[in-house]
Amino acid sequence: MSDVRVIVAGASGYAGALAAQLVYDHPRLDLYAATSRSEAGTRLDRLHPRYRVPVELTELDLDKLEDVDAAIVAYPSGASVSVVAGMRGLGIPVVDLSADFRLQDIPIYQKWYGDHGDPDLLVSAVYGLTELERDNIRDADLVANPGCYPTAALLALAPLAERGGIESVVIDAKSGVSGAGRGAGERASFVNLTENMAPYAVEGHRHQPEIEQGLRRLDVGAPVTFVPHLLPLDQGLLASCYVDLAEPLDAAALTELYAARYADEPFVEVVDTAPGVREVRDTNLCRIHATAVGPRRVAVFAAIDNLWKGASGQAVQNLNLLLGLDETEGLT
Amino acid sequence: MSDVRVIVAGASGYAGALAAQLVYDHPRLDLYAATSRSEAGTRLDRLHPRYRVPVELTELDLDKLEDVDAAIVAYPSGASVSVVAGMRGLGIPVVDLSADFRLQDIPIYQKWYGDHGDPDLLVSAVYGLTELERDNIRDADLVANPGCYPTAALLALAPLAERGGIESVVIDAKSGVSGAGRGAGERASFVNLTENMAPYAVEGHRHQPEIEQGLRRLDVGAPVTFVPHLLPLDQGLLASCYVDLAEPLDAAALTELYAARYADEPFVEVVDTAPGVREVRDTNLCRIHATAVGPRRVAVFAAIDNLWKGASGQAVQNLNLLLGLDETEGLT
Amino acid sequence: MSDVRVIVAGASGYAGALAAQLVYDHPRLDLYAATSRSEAGTRLDRLHPRYRVPVELTELDLDKLEDVDAAIVAYPSGASVSVVAGMRGLGIPVVDLSADFRLQDIPIYQKWYGDHGDPDLLVSAVYGLTELERDNIRDADLVANPGCYPTAALLALAPLAERGGIESVVIDAKSGVSGAGRGAGERASFVNLTENMAPYAVEGHRHQPEIEQGLRRLDVGAPVTFVPHLLPLDQGLLASCYVDLAEPLDAAALTELYAARYADEPFVEVVDTAPGVREVRDTNLCRIHATAVGPRRVAVFAAIDNLWKGASGQAVQNLNLLLGLDETEGLT
Amino acid sequence: MSDVRVIVAGASGYAGALAAQLVYDHPRLDLYAATSRSEAGTRLDRLHPRYRVPVELTELDLDKLEDVDAAIVAYPSGASVSVVAGMRGLGIPVVDLSADFRLQDIPIYQKWYGDHGDPDLLVSAVYGLTELERDNIRDADLVANPGCYPTAALLALAPLAERGGIESVVIDAKSGVSGAGRGAGERASFVNLTENMAPYAVEGHRHQPEIEQGLRRLDVGAPVTFVPHLLPLDQGLLASCYVDLAEPLDAAALTELYAARYADEPFVEVVDTAPGVREVRDTNLCRIHATAVGPRRVAVFAAIDNLWKGASGQAVQNLNLLLGLDETEGLT
Repeated sequence: MSDVRVIVAGASGYAGALAAQLVYDHPRLDLYAATSRSEAGTRLDRLHPRYRVPVELTELDLDKLEDVDAAIVAYPSGASVSVVAGMRGLGIPVVDLSADFRLQDIPIYQKWYGDHGDPDLLVSAVYGLTELERDNIRDADLVANPGCYPTAALLALAPLAERGGIESVVIDAKSGVSGAGRGAGERASFVNLTENMAPYAVEGHRHQPEIEQGLRRLDVGAPVTFVPHLLPLDQGLLASCYVDLAEPLDAAALTELYAARYADEPFVEVVDTAPGVREVRDTNLCRIHATAVGPRRVAVFAAIDNLWKGASGQAVQNLNLLLGLDETEGLT
Repeated sequence: MSDVRVIVAGASGYAGALAAQLVYDHPRLDLYAATSRSEAGTRLDRLHPRYRVPVELTELDLDKLEDVDAAIVAYPSGASVSVVAGMRGLGIPVVDLSADFRLQDIPIYQKWYGDHGDPDLLVSAVYGLTELERDNIRDADLVANPGCYPTAALLALAPLAERGGIESVVIDAKSGVSGAGRGAGERASFVNLTENMAPYAVEGHRHQPEIEQGLRRLDVGAPVTFVPHLLPLDQGLLASCYVDLAEPLDAAALTELYAARYADEPFVEVVDTAPGVREVRDTNLCRIHATAVGPRRVAVFAAIDNLWKGASGQAVQNLNLLLGLDETEGLT
Repeated sequence: MSDVRVIVAGASGYAGALAAQLVYDHPRLDLYAATSRSEAGTRLDRLHPRYRVPVELTELDLDKLEDVDAAIVAYPSGASVSVVAGMRGLGIPVVDLSADFRLQDIPIYQKWYGDHGDPDLLVSAVYGLTELERDNIRDADLVANPGCYPTAALLALAPLAERGGIESVVIDAKSGVSGAGRGAGERASFVNLTENMAPYAVEGHRHQPEIEQGLRRLDVGAPVTFVPHLLPLDQGLLASCYVDLAEPLDAAALTELYAARYADEPFVEVVDTAPGVREVRDTNLCRIHATAVGPRRVAVFAAIDNLWKGASGQAVQNLNLLLGLDETEGLT
Repeated sequence: MSDVRVIVAGASGYAGALAAQLVYDHPRLDLYAATSRSEAGTRLDRLHPRYRVPVELTELDLDKLEDVDAAIVAYPSGASVSVVAGMRGLGIPVVDLSADFRLQDIPIYQKWYGDHGDPDLLVSAVYGLTELERDNIRDADLVANPGCYPTAALLALAPLAERGGIESVVIDAKSGVSGAGRGAGERASFVNLTENMAPYAVEGHRHQPEIEQGLRRLDVGAPVTFVPHLLPLDQGLLASCYVDLAEPLDAAALTELYAARYADEPFVEVVDTAPGVREVRDTNLCRIHATAVGPRRVAVFAAIDNLWKGASGQAVQNLNLLLGLDETEGLT
């Protein structure tokens, strides 16, 4: 079988550049093109020397995609809808990294993002948290790749959610600054970040409704508090989750619950001490540690690389599934 | 009035060195001596060039303290008891930075630290969280300076605790590595810390009973979950507190509660956005932001410099009080 | 004597904000106003919480400066000329932080910066490297505050230059990223800087002619190689200088040369080991270590805080001189 | 052909752990054992989670190496001689990462390190700077893997050295702190490193005679000044070299010289702008940029990852050669 030709649209940002590298290095995929609106004409390994992709960025031209078999779109939220719609009109399967297709409830989408440019397309999308939606992703034409915070939080919470009995959730999340994207400006400057850390978006972050949607799909309706913090590091995300349960859950049962749930998952590792983010740097892994901190309270810590499992790594994982390939190809 | 002669015992560690600098620069205090068991003979500004104290470290000799008016003791926990006992035997008032005199309940002390070398002395100590214990500190001979995490957490929680109605508390705390002290070894190495972060002591940290003791003194018996995280920065500590209340508290009342409680406090600033730790770096300030994140849930964020308000700054604040000086002298 | 009313123009950048703080905290100066073209209406301590200046930034209005006694101008290079000219037209003495008045040789200025907007004003300026130009600064109306690299390099080289016999100079300089200014954009992002370092402007940096000018004023015509490097830190600058001499200079004579030259300088410390930049952080100090590394080769290391001695600290030092105040006021 | 069984002795340090990972992941090598004197019994991926080697560290037993085909020894300098001697006595080919076999001149060795435990073995060793000694390495039984600084410096200087006419060399080198090893103690602490940088070993670093030896082998006898600087980063090393030539060399000839010299080298990239260390992170690459900075002065910048090309990556490169494998196997 010949390689699958994949276009990465929006490859000049951090997530797009990594997606391009993962596709470029993938044993079964061929990087057909890497596009950028702002950096066309520049070689990707010049723009981002750490990603060793010796390919010139081009402008996206929807009229010249006849040889493209699949796409990863890494446009900013809001800008992605029209590109994805164009690609879908050509029959190209798409994994989209933006927030444009994640929230399936139109009123909730509108509350956080305003009107959606293509509601019909929105409802056709499959939410791409692989470990929770694997079968749907296999059959999808359009995968809405999850946000970085929802990925870590939902993987941390899923075993308890599926078991039932969650009464309350607090998610105190910490992320490196690459999660803010290449265009984050002064807020992402070294001067502002070094020797600093702060909560942000305390009064409401767009990943909150995405986390709530994910929990609702697991029949959890409990109140969720989600507070992200910005930390002085590049890549790495930790979700520290504090869950109150209706009934006591002893330590052994908790350990067994998590071990059993993720026993067969290639990219989720349940570990017996709280993980550091450096352990999963540059991998598609999510490392999870769950521990009882009270009779009816559990703390769960999930560490990911926000650019890998929190973005481009999971995108390739989903693309593998959608294309019928082994889920782990190109990711280990 | 002539200056008060102060000895800083244990001045080779981070907190001790800063205490020596604060005393050295203080308009009303005179640094009588700075001692170190391991570094005697070295000039302090050679050992720690960032602290500009041109004084040679000496060995502590309890037989030669007749001219000493007061002491700050910065020994490791466990090693402090005998030194403090010796000084107290000479009638010297002491502010102690270790954990040796913080936990007033002997069984609780024993559970976390083992037997106490001088239980009588322990019960004579006053807990030195200035904003909560000011009058007691004025009359004290021995002040147990609080831990860094309890300082931030209790200042964050006190207004709600004093008001009543707390049902549950989660404290997700983040600290720079200087809090682990100069002897922290490989765990505190740059290689281990850069581009990393992790929860630690998840199954129980010694500051937890100290926080619980502080809350009990405010008549709060609710369960407390406390999880510290180690971050890639030197100085700086943030306590993110999530509090469930028995009754709703609206945003305006919450704001008014915090504003009123700390209106006259020189070192507590209630601010209207979540603070970054860099804002309070190298100051004795605690910056607090409280916000309603649910009908009966409040998030409170408190940022301090762990070496200042979390250790040596508060020690000088307490020493000022104990000596009858203006509380802010030498700290602004 | 009443306080001197000082305006800081361009106070929203890093150097301007620090200048505003130094003036605000200065015992003899009064911060009359802090202006910003882009941030007027914002309080300075909101924009830069680490600088605790509770003053609202205003727009500069040259028609309303009648009560202003002196100015520090912290505009970008190129934008400063017209503002300084306007102030000088009103008779206001100015310390200018830009490069607009540093290069006294018009053709050299033109080569590096293009046409100068006011050549007559340029030749009226005094170069503000305090330790080399103190008497001129006392009599100046317009001080061109030196660049950060030239400050460290010239202080490192001056004793040898004044002695004579320099045949060749290599300056390998390293700076934290605050030196690039607040508008440095993506190049100054945390993502690009953390765990990175690189030479830059290898083919020619604007501080090279400034260093050469400074050496020429000390009768040194030897070739100078200057290569700056960008490092993952905020504040701090180190100039590592390698000097070839015509005649041997023994270690004792070298030590004596530096010790004698700077014996009376309040802000230059000659030390006997190579300095780290953290030792001078947040101070106006330059720490210098000189050592013989060959029969006729000397290495000299000079460490400064690029925002203090490399910019705003030296500006206040110069302003003190120009106003007849003690040079160290407000800087210790 | 079956895999080559390789033991990594001293796998608990940074270089040893990376060597173990590279062997573990190598398509043609089999990690027979990873040993540690201090950490035997611990799994390597527990000790260093970032290295994903699920192998328990064992104690080295020279009596049980009959099935071992080759060894990488990563002991501290001084401790390596006896282990290597024992392995060589068993006929096992060794790549040694310490300094014990690098300096071939006994008096020079003695001056810097004291007496050598096995001078005969010393002279049997081949210096393992691959690009300069490839044929010797192919035939070697014992390879002395170069130091990190000499690797970068000699690769930077070799084309000019081979051409001739070098009159003087200044090497201003900068390294991340992993180069100091896991046992570096307080000097390598985060608190000491963050927001800091400093020259060190200014009066003489052990890599200086190694660089001089390397240059002598290329018939360069010019004086060499070498000054290392410690920087706030984990992995990464930059050698900034300033070379005075007897005769002018124009820019085009310089470019051609470097391009031609390294055209066929798989791990040396000659680039047209000064490289940042992040570009070569986690690779075995050395990126070099050479530029004329004066009529007879050239600046050459070489960036490597000190743990890869500066230690374990080059060790595997050498092991590949010594075993007759393709030089790049397991390194791309």
